[in-house]
Amino acid sequence: MAARPDVARDAREQLLVTTSRIMREADTVDVSLALLSKKSGLNSALVKYYFGNKAGLMKALLDRDMSRIIQSVDALLAKDLDPEAKLRRHLSAVVDTFYETPYIQRLLMRLVRESEPSEAQRIADAYLMPIYAAYDRLIGEGVKAGIFREVDPQLFYFSVTGAADRFFAARLFLRYCFGVDSLTEQLRDRYREHTIDFVMAGLMRD
Amino acid sequence: MAARPDVARDAREQLLVTTSRIMREADTVDVSLALLSKKSGLNSALVKYYFGNKAGLMKALLDRDMSRIIQSVDALLAKDLDPEAKLRRHLSAVVDTFYETPYIQRLLMRLVRESEPSEAQRIADAYLMPIYAAYDRLIGEGVKAGIFREVDPQLFYFSVTGAADRFFAARLFLRYCFGVDSLTEQLRDRYREHTIDFVMAGLMRD
Repeated sequence: MAARPDVARDAREQLLVTTSRIMREADTVDVSLALLSKKSGLNSALVKYYFGNKAGLMKALLDRDMSRIIQSVDALLAKDLDPEAKLRRHLSAVVDTFYETPYIQRLLMRLVRESEPSEAQRIADAYLMPIYAAYDRLIGEGVKAGIFREVDPQLFYFSVTGAADRFFAARLFLRYCFGVDSLTEQLRDRYREHTIDFVMAGLMRD
Repeated sequence: MAARPDVARDAREQLLVTTSRIMREADTVDVSLALLSKKSGLNSALVKYYFGNKAGLMKALLDRDMSRIIQSVDALLAKDLDPEAKLRRHLSAVVDTFYETPYIQRLLMRLVRESEPSEAQRIADAYLMPIYAAYDRLIGEGVKAGIFREVDPQLFYFSVTGAADRFFAARLFLRYCFGVDSLTEQLRDRYREHTIDFVMAGLMRD
C-alpha cells in the first residue's frame, strides 16, 4: 500500500531531521544508515527510496540547510535597515546557524570535494556565489555610506565565517583541553556577543 | 648495508617534507603511500621503517609542524616588545603558517578524533594547551596595560585562527566560484594585511 503523500513527506523530513541531529550531537559528517534507522525509527530502505543512497541523503541535507541560509540572508538584505543594524543581525544569525548546524561547513566541503564536477559547480553556483554576492552588498553599502572602514568584502567573509565555524568545530579540542562541551546555549551566547563586539569594532569607522 | 645515520635522517626528513608538500598542493590530508613513494623517490617500505605505518607518519608530521608553531610562539612571547607589536607579529606568523601548512588544522582534528584517548590527550597537552596559554598572555598583557579592549583571550583565539584557517581551507570553493587558487603569495599578502588591520582595529582601545 502506498503511503499517503503527507506521511511520505513526514518520513523524508524525519530522515533529514534525524541525520542533522546525529551529525550535530556526534560532531561528525559520517552517519551510518544503521544508526540513522535506529534513531529515526525508520527502515533504512527508506533512504534508498527517498534519496537513492547515502550520498543523496547528504546532498538533500545540504540543500535543506543551505537553502535556509540563503533565504535568511536574502530576507535580511531586503529589510529597510541601516548597514550597521543589518550586519549586527547577520553576525548574530551566523553564530546561531553554526550552533544549530555545526557540521555545515564540513558537509559543504565534503560534497564539493567528492561530487562530480557538475554537481560541485551546482553547489558553488546555488549556495556559495549568492553568499559572496550578499557580502558585497552587506559590506559594500556600509563602506559606500562611510560607516564602515574600507575592507574587502570577500576577505571579510572569511574572517567572519571562519571565526564562527572554528568555534563550533573545535568542540573536540575543548573537550580534551578543558573538559567542556562548547555546544551549550551559554557558550553560544558568549561567543555571539564576542563576535558582534569584535567584528563591529574592527569594521566601524572611529 | 645499513644506511649512514645522516643519510637515514635525510630519508626520514624527506618523507615528512614530501608528505607536507603533497597535502599542501593537493589540499588534502589523505596521502597514499604510492604517491608519497613516487614524489619522494623513496621506497614506501621506509615509511614502515621510520614511522611504523601511515598513522605514524601523520603523527610525526603533526609533531614536526606543531613543535615549530609552539617554538615560534614561545620565542615571540619571550621578546621584549609591547603587546601591540607582539600581536601584530603573531598575526603575521599565523597567516604565514596557514599558507605554508594549510592542512594543519584538518590534520590536528583528524589525529585528535581518530587516535586512542591517551594519544589525543597527549596532542591536546603538548600543542593545544600551550597555545591557549600563550593567548592568555599575548592578549592578557595588552588588556592589563589598557591598550586592548577587554576581550576573552580564548574566544579571541577562535576568531583569529578560524579566520586564517578558513581562508586557506576554502581553496576548493574559490576555484569553483572564481576560478582562482587562493594559495598564491599575492593573496597571502592581501589576507595577511587584511587580518592584521581588521583584528587590530577590533582589539585596540580607541
